[in-house]
Amino acid sequence: MENIKNYIETNRERFLEELFGLIRIHSVSASAANKADMVRAAEYIRDLLEANGADRAEVYATPGNPVVYGEKMIDPSLPTILVYGHYDVMPAEPLDKWTSNPFEPEIRDGKIWARGADDDKGQLFMHLKAFEMMNATGTLACNVRFMIEGEEEAGSESIAGFCSEYRDMLRSDVILISDTTMISPEMPSVTSGLRGLSYIQVEVEGPDRDLHSGIYGGAVVNPCNVLCDIISKLKDSDGRIAIPGFYDAVAVPTDAERAKMAERPFDPEKYKQAVGVDALAAEKGFTTLESTGIRPTLDVNGIWGGYTGEGAKTILPAKASAKISMRLVPYQKAEEIATLAISHIRSLAPAGVRVRAEYLHGGEAYVSPLDTPEYLAAEKAYTEIYGRKPIPIRSGGSIPIISTFEKILGIKSILMGFGLESDAIHSPNESYPLENLFAGMRAIPLYFKYYAELKKKG
Amino acid sequence: MENIKNYIETNRERFLEELFGLIRIHSVSASAANKADMVRAAEYIRDLLEANGADRAEVYATPGNPVVYGEKMIDPSLPTILVYGHYDVMPAEPLDKWTSNPFEPEIRDGKIWARGADDDKGQLFMHLKAFEMMNATGTLACNVRFMIEGEEEAGSESIAGFCSEYRDMLRSDVILISDTTMISPEMPSVTSGLRGLSYIQVEVEGPDRDLHSGIYGGAVVNPCNVLCDIISKLKDSDGRIAIPGFYDAVAVPTDAERAKMAERPFDPEKYKQAVGVDALAAEKGFTTLESTGIRPTLDVNGIWGGYTGEGAKTILPAKASAKISMRLVPYQKAEEIATLAISHIRSLAPAGVRVRAEYLHGGEAYVSPLDTPEYLAAEKAYTEIYGRKPIPIRSGGSIPIISTFEKILGIKSILMGFGLESDAIHSPNESYPLENLFAGMRAIPLYFKYYAELKKKG
Repeated sequence: MENIKNYIETNRERFLEELFGLIRIHSVSASAANKADMVRAAEYIRDLLEANGADRAEVYATPGNPVVYGEKMIDPSLPTILVYGHYDVMPAEPLDKWTSNPFEPEIRDGKIWARGADDDKGQLFMHLKAFEMMNATGTLACNVRFMIEGEEEAGSESIAGFCSEYRDMLRSDVILISDTTMISPEMPSVTSGLRGLSYIQVEVEGPDRDLHSGIYGGAVVNPCNVLCDIISKLKDSDGRIAIPGFYDAVAVPTDAERAKMAERPFDPEKYKQAVGVDALAAEKGFTTLESTGIRPTLDVNGIWGGYTGEGAKTILPAKASAKISMRLVPYQKAEEIATLAISHIRSLAPAGVRVRAEYLHGGEAYVSPLDTPEYLAAEKAYTEIYGRKPIPIRSGGSIPIISTFEKILGIKSILMGFGLESDAIHSPNESYPLENLFAGMRAIPLYFKYYAELKKKG
Repeated sequence: MENIKNYIETNRERFLEELFGLIRIHSVSASAANKADMVRAAEYIRDLLEANGADRAEVYATPGNPVVYGEKMIDPSLPTILVYGHYDVMPAEPLDKWTSNPFEPEIRDGKIWARGADDDKGQLFMHLKAFEMMNATGTLACNVRFMIEGEEEAGSESIAGFCSEYRDMLRSDVILISDTTMISPEMPSVTSGLRGLSYIQVEVEGPDRDLHSGIYGGAVVNPCNVLCDIISKLKDSDGRIAIPGFYDAVAVPTDAERAKMAERPFDPEKYKQAVGVDALAAEKGFTTLESTGIRPTLDVNGIWGGYTGEGAKTILPAKASAKISMRLVPYQKAEEIATLAISHIRSLAPAGVRVRAEYLHGGEAYVSPLDTPEYLAAEKAYTEIYGRKPIPIRSGGSIPIISTFEKILGIKSILMGFGLESDAIHSPNESYPLENLFAGMRAIPLYFKYYAELKKKG
């Protein structure tokens, strides 16, 4: 452990320069225009894996962006850890909201500021350096594989095919992922559950062209008004989702589970301040934490239609569109929920418009048991780093591929995240504290060590 | 009358070339970037007025786009007609929907295809040529003034100031405007009423940045969802506008008036086909024609918020915006209605968001009496051209400056429009039939003649 700490001290500047090199690559997966950057990012990681001691490191082409695979198999009798991460990032727009260039990382106030500083280039990078250090200090306690993809922020469309094709190559005991948050260094936590996701896009089409709103207003059904009516009817006044069948599969937590969850500290004033609002939403009958952790939600991610330029154009628009995502809880199936939502949306459309709707992507929710070597190794690693046992939390975010991994590879995942909510991932001014970056680099070798020990005992 | 017809025959090609020159100027008033084109269009019209016999023709600067003024005062004992029109046009977007370049007029199927072909370059041009022909044939029967502005499609913000400043110069007996439609050459009509307009813009602001929809979804109020809720609540399920006080000033037509209105031919199948919809809207208790003619309406003209690019971005947007216009009927006041709407919208916003709303522009509705020399002169002119008495119709569109003219100048307007609904003004592929263009050029000198006669008698 002292060795690792010293290694970080000695190599700190090189480590940061390597991470910054990765961040500087514009690997935004939402736009097909970035193909070359996706390949550059994949090759950059492959080169690091090779330099850091992998027996094998390769870039695999997929129908989408490439997957980087690497491995170091030291002893077949030891357990094997599969590290998953992603080198793609969210779009950085709106660019004018950033204090510094999102693709030119800066250190200010003890944090790295850049798109991907946390999600997931920063967190993924901790694994690359932990791997280097375990190799350099002769402490690698498990076999290790890496599977780093480039489509996580855009639906991970190619990873299922990759897992199916290379099922044997990927055989492991646990998947280790750093792509989530913890509460704080003072109150460490491990994400033990994630919501699922069902993402749809809806288009309401009315007249075959934009019409004059004076001449036709009142006689022709307005697609923008209809889309608003439809969206408004997707939730009732208690904040419950009004799609028939939506809650059928939802697991209702017991009172005991809810009481345990309520132990997690939560300061609504701080929370409101952190996002700049003066009041919070919550589904009737549930707390804020429950609303983000164990209850499904429905949010409009984007909406557009008609004239959106400056001034006043008096048109009755030909169409209106929206992107709508639903966060799911255990037992809800992403595609089934999309089907229910789309069919309900169609039923809400009045005569005079046509509705097109499609399922864009999604994945099921995930909950980890808390008494397995996989979870306990994480608990011990955090305890050693932070001097305090981490609490398990159910996070609102989704990593849809976790259910894919379980289905295709039959392997459970552990979410050893070191991000903070204040890192503002997916938003302008994303950041990642250096403290968390280096704590993660120290915690990961501990996970390897304790996992090997616990598996041996078990 | 024969002289006029012959004059058109002889000068047809030159007339079209002059009109095309005007259309080719990109005088789109919605964007401030077109200043130079606005001036070019104004000067083009001034030059035509000068060449066509005006005693005076000048371009007047305003805080916005210039106004062209021209006059020919032949005899103080004759009545004076003030011709109003506008040289500015709507934006041509979406450009990919046009069959030919919107600013390079083409003649196909007996029509001119271009932005402004009808609204209002084409219709305004009829007056310029009628003026030329009355001068050339020595038949000018009234004094005439021209006031041609460049902000009609963007709120006519400068014209009120112009009218106040030049009230004396503009003194006239009637304002003659060609900026509306008629039913068809087989069923000529004169617009005897127009709806008013109240145009507002609403912005709902939530968190201070786009948030991760998984981590925050359920806890933070979503501005896009709220905007949809608000817009949905602006109308009830009967199609009535649910803004308190909205209908207080609305004049309810008598059964006799409604019966007269119902004489206007209306084929719902043709109407639906013309706009490409399979069903029409109508406020409960009113027909389609009543819904567009004598009832107020509310339409979303544009809506935007969050992520609108390709693929799936899982954000809870920081804000959402909409442009909303209300068409008004007699006695509703545009600014009062905007105030009612904005105050209702604010009252509908839940805690957790802030609403910004502003009145962009508007004007009151207009109704013309049918027994005055001003109206009867138009009736006689159409009858002579089309062989059939025109029927008076109440149109859904708005020309807000008509109420401004009445308030500031104390002059009533007559709407002698020759457009057709199929001209698709404000839409891609705007057109104007040559037949209507030349019929208008012949009808206007008749108006001058009959107006002088009727005023003399009166």
